[in-house]
Amino acid sequence: MNIYDVSKHAGVSIATVSRVLNGNPNVSEKTREKVLKVMDDLGYTPNVFARGLGLDTMHTVGIMCSDSSDPYLAGAIYYLERSLRSHGYDSILCCTGYDLEVKQKYFSLLRSKRVDAIILAGSKFVEMRPRDNAYLLEAAADLPIMLVNGWLEGDNIYSTLCDDREAVRQAVSLLIRTGCQNILYLYSSHSYSGLSKQAGYKDALEAAGIPLRQELIHQCSKDAEASRDLLLSLADQGLVFDAVMTSDDSLAVGAVKYAHARGISIPDKLSIIGYNNSLLARCTDPEITSVDSKVEALCTATVNTLMGVFSGENVPSRTTIASDLIIRSTTKRRFQT
Amino acid sequence: MNIYDVSKHAGVSIATVSRVLNGNPNVSEKTREKVLKVMDDLGYTPNVFARGLGLDTMHTVGIMCSDSSDPYLAGAIYYLERSLRSHGYDSILCCTGYDLEVKQKYFSLLRSKRVDAIILAGSKFVEMRPRDNAYLLEAAADLPIMLVNGWLEGDNIYSTLCDDREAVRQAVSLLIRTGCQNILYLYSSHSYSGLSKQAGYKDALEAAGIPLRQELIHQCSKDAEASRDLLLSLADQGLVFDAVMTSDDSLAVGAVKYAHARGISIPDKLSIIGYNNSLLARCTDPEITSVDSKVEALCTATVNTLMGVFSGENVPSRTTIASDLIIRSTTKRRFQT
Repeated sequence: MNIYDVSKHAGVSIATVSRVLNGNPNVSEKTREKVLKVMDDLGYTPNVFARGLGLDTMHTVGIMCSDSSDPYLAGAIYYLERSLRSHGYDSILCCTGYDLEVKQKYFSLLRSKRVDAIILAGSKFVEMRPRDNAYLLEAAADLPIMLVNGWLEGDNIYSTLCDDREAVRQAVSLLIRTGCQNILYLYSSHSYSGLSKQAGYKDALEAAGIPLRQELIHQCSKDAEASRDLLLSLADQGLVFDAVMTSDDSLAVGAVKYAHARGISIPDKLSIIGYNNSLLARCTDPEITSVDSKVEALCTATVNTLMGVFSGENVPSRTTIASDLIIRSTTKRRFQT
Repeated sequence: MNIYDVSKHAGVSIATVSRVLNGNPNVSEKTREKVLKVMDDLGYTPNVFARGLGLDTMHTVGIMCSDSSDPYLAGAIYYLERSLRSHGYDSILCCTGYDLEVKQKYFSLLRSKRVDAIILAGSKFVEMRPRDNAYLLEAAADLPIMLVNGWLEGDNIYSTLCDDREAVRQAVSLLIRTGCQNILYLYSSHSYSGLSKQAGYKDALEAAGIPLRQELIHQCSKDAEASRDLLLSLADQGLVFDAVMTSDDSLAVGAVKYAHARGISIPDKLSIIGYNNSLLARCTDPEITSVDSKVEALCTATVNTLMGVFSGENVPSRTTIASDLIIRSTTKRRFQT
């Protein structure tokens, strides 16, 4: 018995049920009575949303992240914690690693603490196989699940995403406009975010009428040395490329190392673009042009959406935030005409 | 009224009082009776240590860190959370920033949550002026305060430290043995850890009979560009140096950038050593020789000490962990004879 049963039986939206529970005046008296009657008939006791009223809340939100020592996720945790605290909520942190069973175990643990919501930071929490996400859909019947840069369709699940596809499309378009013709694409993950980025690469090629060549697309673990070694080996196999677009700054650092190892001039002979605009992008010489995926805005928007859910507002299940491309010295300035 | 009053009045150690409270058999019957009588006389109700018994515990530890987007602290939070969880404890995270008032506010907030202990991650929580640390000493009467890489003397305050002084001494000695004569020292903080590192620099010079020159010691904000610009300006002022020892990898990255900007060959004409052995040290070309300050071991030892405190063991108030020097390509291999 939960708020979804009430919504179904009363023939109103979940947001309406939640408004009734919160005493929000934007509900007609007729609807309010209908909802209250259904609750009574079903013997429903407010749970999640009562917490939003401060009746039964710990004012605590669980944050799960796969690995807080990843610079992107470390930033996300910082901004999430800060934003939650500004709304009077504590954060219980769980660093889960990447194993599904371990993630599920920690997820249950957080639920047993009666947290008011669970935020999943990073795109590694949504699995490829639908049945592996069933535990998230089930849990969402009881508490809001917030995804930061991940996407899963379901009631009471809210996603805040960077527009990764558009970000990569713009970046690759810049490479094309500055004269690059053989643009290698290096990525590390098949997550929702990972697939969106790859789609952006294809969009840009298609818009420019450049045929897609699978031999230019390569997966690589998120590590500068792995990326450098992969590029060395691809070059040794005779693959020709004059630009490297990457899904993460660490891969772009590897591309800079590859160019240094082979004495290739950046950006004249090789252009490179990173992703996430992390500290790493500013460590190399030359410094790396990188997509600013707006992690702070993403985290603030996630928490704002959650506060909307708590107060029974009609919040969007999906919010998309535009990225910026931060131009540094691994891309050419002059456009080819 | 707290456990320290009991210990003082009974004339036994805090560890003994805690053993009595925990029913530990390693206490003589006579001592046990004396302690119980003093508690009775003073009207003392067990508090902190009762929690260790599971009588009144949330099994939750507060972690404060100044900035989890700092790579070193992000790693620390990850290891602390993992280690606490392996002992069945949750972590409530607070990212405080560097302002004393804000730190104090968050500290009070954590105490009001009745956490079982508070871990202060990083050396930025101990202030220079003793009166600014009074709130920590007061709080320690009620719950254990754990410092990760910080040091403050007081009952129920436990420090786990990297031997920063020895680490820098070894690193600077390596520079001297490989022929460097004018070793610049760049640091960012006057924290306990910051001062220890600087002492290590002086130790190494003294051991080699090299006079200390204040014009070779410079403070710089923890940022690669700030470090590069400082070195450019020092060189322009005519300062001569053939090595840069730094208190953080970001400063060492700046030194590499300085050398590239001026066409100075690394390590032949300039040797560079970083600190913390973070991801940053492996982003540059050449990669940076750096002190591994053993953040994982530091965090695990902190949590082990805390578990000892909870179970009334006689734990050391200070644990020091030895560092490693990870040799990469910014230092010379050949010793000068």
